[in-house]
Amino acid sequence: MKAIRVHAYGQPPRLDDVPEPRATGPDDVIVRIGGAGLCRTDLHIIDGWFADVIPSDLPIVLGHENAGWVHAVGPAVEHLAVGDPVICHPNLTCGVCSACRAGDDMRCARGPNLPGLMGVGGMAELFKTTARAVVKLPAGAEPAQVAALADAGLTAYHAVSKAVPALGPGSSAVAVGAGGLGHIGIQCLKAMTPAHVIAVDTSEDALKLALSCGADHAVTADGQQAQQVRDLTGTGADAVFDFVGEDTTIGDSVAMLRPGGTYYLVGYGGTVTLPTIQLVLGEITVAGNLIGTNPDLTTWCAIRLLGCSGCLRRVGPGNVSGRAERS
Amino acid sequence: MKAIRVHAYGQPPRLDDVPEPRATGPDDVIVRIGGAGLCRTDLHIIDGWFADVIPSDLPIVLGHENAGWVHAVGPAVEHLAVGDPVICHPNLTCGVCSACRAGDDMRCARGPNLPGLMGVGGMAELFKTTARAVVKLPAGAEPAQVAALADAGLTAYHAVSKAVPALGPGSSAVAVGAGGLGHIGIQCLKAMTPAHVIAVDTSEDALKLALSCGADHAVTADGQQAQQVRDLTGTGADAVFDFVGEDTTIGDSVAMLRPGGTYYLVGYGGTVTLPTIQLVLGEITVAGNLIGTNPDLTTWCAIRLLGCSGCLRRVGPGNVSGRAERS
Amino acid sequence: MKAIRVHAYGQPPRLDDVPEPRATGPDDVIVRIGGAGLCRTDLHIIDGWFADVIPSDLPIVLGHENAGWVHAVGPAVEHLAVGDPVICHPNLTCGVCSACRAGDDMRCARGPNLPGLMGVGGMAELFKTTARAVVKLPAGAEPAQVAALADAGLTAYHAVSKAVPALGPGSSAVAVGAGGLGHIGIQCLKAMTPAHVIAVDTSEDALKLALSCGADHAVTADGQQAQQVRDLTGTGADAVFDFVGEDTTIGDSVAMLRPGGTYYLVGYGGTVTLPTIQLVLGEITVAGNLIGTNPDLTTWCAIRLLGCSGCLRRVGPGNVSGRAERS
Amino acid sequence: MKAIRVHAYGQPPRLDDVPEPRATGPDDVIVRIGGAGLCRTDLHIIDGWFADVIPSDLPIVLGHENAGWVHAVGPAVEHLAVGDPVICHPNLTCGVCSACRAGDDMRCARGPNLPGLMGVGGMAELFKTTARAVVKLPAGAEPAQVAALADAGLTAYHAVSKAVPALGPGSSAVAVGAGGLGHIGIQCLKAMTPAHVIAVDTSEDALKLALSCGADHAVTADGQQAQQVRDLTGTGADAVFDFVGEDTTIGDSVAMLRPGGTYYLVGYGGTVTLPTIQLVLGEITVAGNLIGTNPDLTTWCAIRLLGCSGCLRRVGPGNVSGRAERS
Repeated sequence: MKAIRVHAYGQPPRLDDVPEPRATGPDDVIVRIGGAGLCRTDLHIIDGWFADVIPSDLPIVLGHENAGWVHAVGPAVEHLAVGDPVICHPNLTCGVCSACRAGDDMRCARGPNLPGLMGVGGMAELFKTTARAVVKLPAGAEPAQVAALADAGLTAYHAVSKAVPALGPGSSAVAVGAGGLGHIGIQCLKAMTPAHVIAVDTSEDALKLALSCGADHAVTADGQQAQQVRDLTGTGADAVFDFVGEDTTIGDSVAMLRPGGTYYLVGYGGTVTLPTIQLVLGEITVAGNLIGTNPDLTTWCAIRLLGCSGCLRRVGPGNVSGRAERS
Repeated sequence: MKAIRVHAYGQPPRLDDVPEPRATGPDDVIVRIGGAGLCRTDLHIIDGWFADVIPSDLPIVLGHENAGWVHAVGPAVEHLAVGDPVICHPNLTCGVCSACRAGDDMRCARGPNLPGLMGVGGMAELFKTTARAVVKLPAGAEPAQVAALADAGLTAYHAVSKAVPALGPGSSAVAVGAGGLGHIGIQCLKAMTPAHVIAVDTSEDALKLALSCGADHAVTADGQQAQQVRDLTGTGADAVFDFVGEDTTIGDSVAMLRPGGTYYLVGYGGTVTLPTIQLVLGEITVAGNLIGTNPDLTTWCAIRLLGCSGCLRRVGPGNVSGRAERS
Repeated sequence: MKAIRVHAYGQPPRLDDVPEPRATGPDDVIVRIGGAGLCRTDLHIIDGWFADVIPSDLPIVLGHENAGWVHAVGPAVEHLAVGDPVICHPNLTCGVCSACRAGDDMRCARGPNLPGLMGVGGMAELFKTTARAVVKLPAGAEPAQVAALADAGLTAYHAVSKAVPALGPGSSAVAVGAGGLGHIGIQCLKAMTPAHVIAVDTSEDALKLALSCGADHAVTADGQQAQQVRDLTGTGADAVFDFVGEDTTIGDSVAMLRPGGTYYLVGYGGTVTLPTIQLVLGEITVAGNLIGTNPDLTTWCAIRLLGCSGCLRRVGPGNVSGRAERS
Repeated sequence: MKAIRVHAYGQPPRLDDVPEPRATGPDDVIVRIGGAGLCRTDLHIIDGWFADVIPSDLPIVLGHENAGWVHAVGPAVEHLAVGDPVICHPNLTCGVCSACRAGDDMRCARGPNLPGLMGVGGMAELFKTTARAVVKLPAGAEPAQVAALADAGLTAYHAVSKAVPALGPGSSAVAVGAGGLGHIGIQCLKAMTPAHVIAVDTSEDALKLALSCGADHAVTADGQQAQQVRDLTGTGADAVFDFVGEDTTIGDSVAMLRPGGTYYLVGYGGTVTLPTIQLVLGEITVAGNLIGTNPDLTTWCAIRLLGCSGCLRRVGPGNVSGRAERS
């Protein structure tokens, strides 16, 4: 079958012919790929940025945001049938460690097992994963439409879900960066909280997209954005989500917070440099965020696929399902 | 001034002439009443139902849901000025006990101090209360429109706010009784959570109101309502709010829950009678609810007055304020 | 092999010869039993009390509190080796439904799957279970000493763990019934919270046991126990754990609570009968409790086996392990 | 009366004669000082470090950790009587803003109002404060023994109390710096959580003190301390409390955390400098901490004064009281 492989860092990936994977283990699942997302992490993989952080033997097949249809399953897989539309969680987990049992999929005791970063990914015709990493989509769902939710969407949802307890009525939240992750984060904030949502970006087009996604206010990042957010909110925002995470956004993002507020760091690249006196006097929290859990993915797909968050029906093990009837 | 007073239980209250109250204490506030709500509790006071539960010397001036404008203040009151539109929390609190300091206004160590139930209420031209019980409304607010929020609205908001952590995306909530409290509860649920909201009532008019308030589904209480909720939700609802609390609603409401769900008891009158084996095997929680706190009232008025929850600006001590500017 | 089987309700179980189980499925685990606990639920099974609540075909092998050593494993089991000492969670779960993924083992979408109640239990030489239900004990642990933790201990731990957020410094908790579950609940309360712990029982011997387990105060249940708890605590207890759950304990237990407190119903048998006005004015919560999760079991065994809660080391997937070195 | 005043930054404070304060406002309280703590913040005030951060007109009377006996009260003060032993919260608050109503005393809308930093402090014979800032101690309490709890103790307690939900059985916590705040933090951790507590310090004497305060393990800060903590805990600690907050402790403290762990920054002076990739891949949280609330102070004094946390009785508005009777 065809697969897109990285053979050397700094070189363009190549379209290769590789052997088809087989469901050899009892919990194996082979997915016929319907869509595989491309995100900034793929570009970082290609240019070698991750070579030391998450080492992997080359060549690797790219693709960590994968969706498709079940092609084959191992003998112990009971909750999936051939033909089911599915989306794949990016980490393969053991299911029996303390972290897995507590729903904390990203911290499985086996360590990270990230196809597309560390092994054979989904930019191929077929993709081998395991039963625990597969979330069933509603019948008729179009995998290509949701593949990017497996990382970009999952990450934005996960960060927002942590902030829900602090974002009650009268609260305010800022999305710094209204691009690939940010415009999803804004949708999550509007679907999951009553917070006033302010989008901040340098691009007017991105701000238009943010407003069309439900942001209540758009602020151009022209150097005065922190002051503008403080003016809009009176005392600063309860939560600031930094979907960029570069040196250019970190200080301004923290300056947007009210005393006692939380800075959610989602994007990465820069360095957090903050005087301790600022963190202590402001009682500021800086919260790093890493992708999300399998329940996060199930929930987030449900929100996105069904166009609304309030119409889900739990119909069985790990499924996402919609319901048409409304009074 | 004129005041509506109960002179004997079971007798109609009378419109009397009584002396005007004065701001004699440092924290006193005299409110010129713009509106005083009438709720089922008032009817229970008149008919003597509360005579033993919350004893009070007669006559009493009715009125525990009060809003108006500041008429006079004691010398220690700094956050209110004559003419400010305000709404009044129904409990007068000490401000220095552990409960007050933790925001748990209904459990002030001084015990309940409920004007309109235990003393001089707001069905009068002027009403004497204390600074801690007064919430400032936005300039131009019309007190008569919000007076009923001081108890009916506050109670519904408080119960819903407890359920927020359990009502994430994909969850479902039921409002049993879509009347005076229920239709407010539905609005709170829709404003504060992504839950699918099901309204249950015997009255088709009440169900129409519920749908116009945002309920996603309406179920007629015809004896099959518990089964209908289970069918709609697949496994039962995550939360059921019983705004009636009579023997006719309790059993059915609990039967609507999924295993692990919570029954929020808001209305009262009947008796909860449930076998322990049902509560244990279903791991069901029954949560009683009592009015709400001062922060609850501030937040709830904000939601209601501004027509949306996401446009508030904190402008000072204890105020509720709106903002017009939107991008 | 030998096994203890119930052939007819109301008849004594018999010691039978039955075939040995085999690890036929990929995730099967055969445990050589070191100890199987006997609890009141077993007596209820024998007398037929559960015949309608949890139907099962007779004969059944008794035994739902099981511990021993791994005898054989299926080919997909990686975290267990033959000879490992283990304790068994009482519910067999699918591992891929929403409840399992969130660590909510008792609400697996496959429904209850309770060996010893619904199928072949552990009162036998060998016991067949599945990998997800097996918790590894530290090397050298003596299974017979901990078998009863698999239900009685797990249930007490689970109920206490729910109350931890409400049991800060200065709080008080009551254990009603200091028997099989209660004396474990008291140990959990002392290990996990700074609450003042009051034990209530009719038996002086039980109260002596309670004090030796760490209870701060012992109250004889002589009809004045609710008043005594209120006197001891000033305003009533923050949490009351009813390990009995009979009609004789329910009303008194609720009467021990402070306003806003929670009644944890752990034992079962009677009927909760409470006026709505009592639940509403007191803002009382009644919380049913059902056994516990796999993480609960891992944690609880750790507390008990190691004689202290503060000396654990996470050493791999789902294990419980101790550490000798102390400064 | 005598008072210790700073007349110029960088100059030693002087013992001056100043007029006695009077209870002129309705909520004023005059405290006859029994003890006033001296902490590193006082040294920073004297040397001018705070001149820009928290500006104040000179001269100022030092002393922000104050305890003593009530000397006089204003006419609206009901919960205190002349002669009561008391401890004083370091921030004077309005009591009616949103923050005060929610128990968030450090973020009163009036802004910081910190006697000893911004105005007249307690290093004097008499000290003027307000009713809301005064916590009554048990009869017979010796104010000089607890004065330092008003800031050093309160701050350590507040930080630990935030971590309680993450510090269940089997968890581990590290105290970096076992000096004035650290040795109190260790006591709080042991009293309030079942966590394994590891103390880290350069001084062997400090480590001995830490062990005598209940620390389970002592690690010398010799450059290998982060590795030692990882070895002791297997995967890293769940929580690290940095009571130093200098450049020399920040990086090592974060390196002691397990993935998903939280770094509580309590001391200050240095700069937090952390690559975003480290915070994101490790999903690390950095939590700044600022003193504590009035309920924190009440609770913490109770723990300390009574020698145990489980023997408190709530006896009225805002009091701390002990109880002698034990079974």
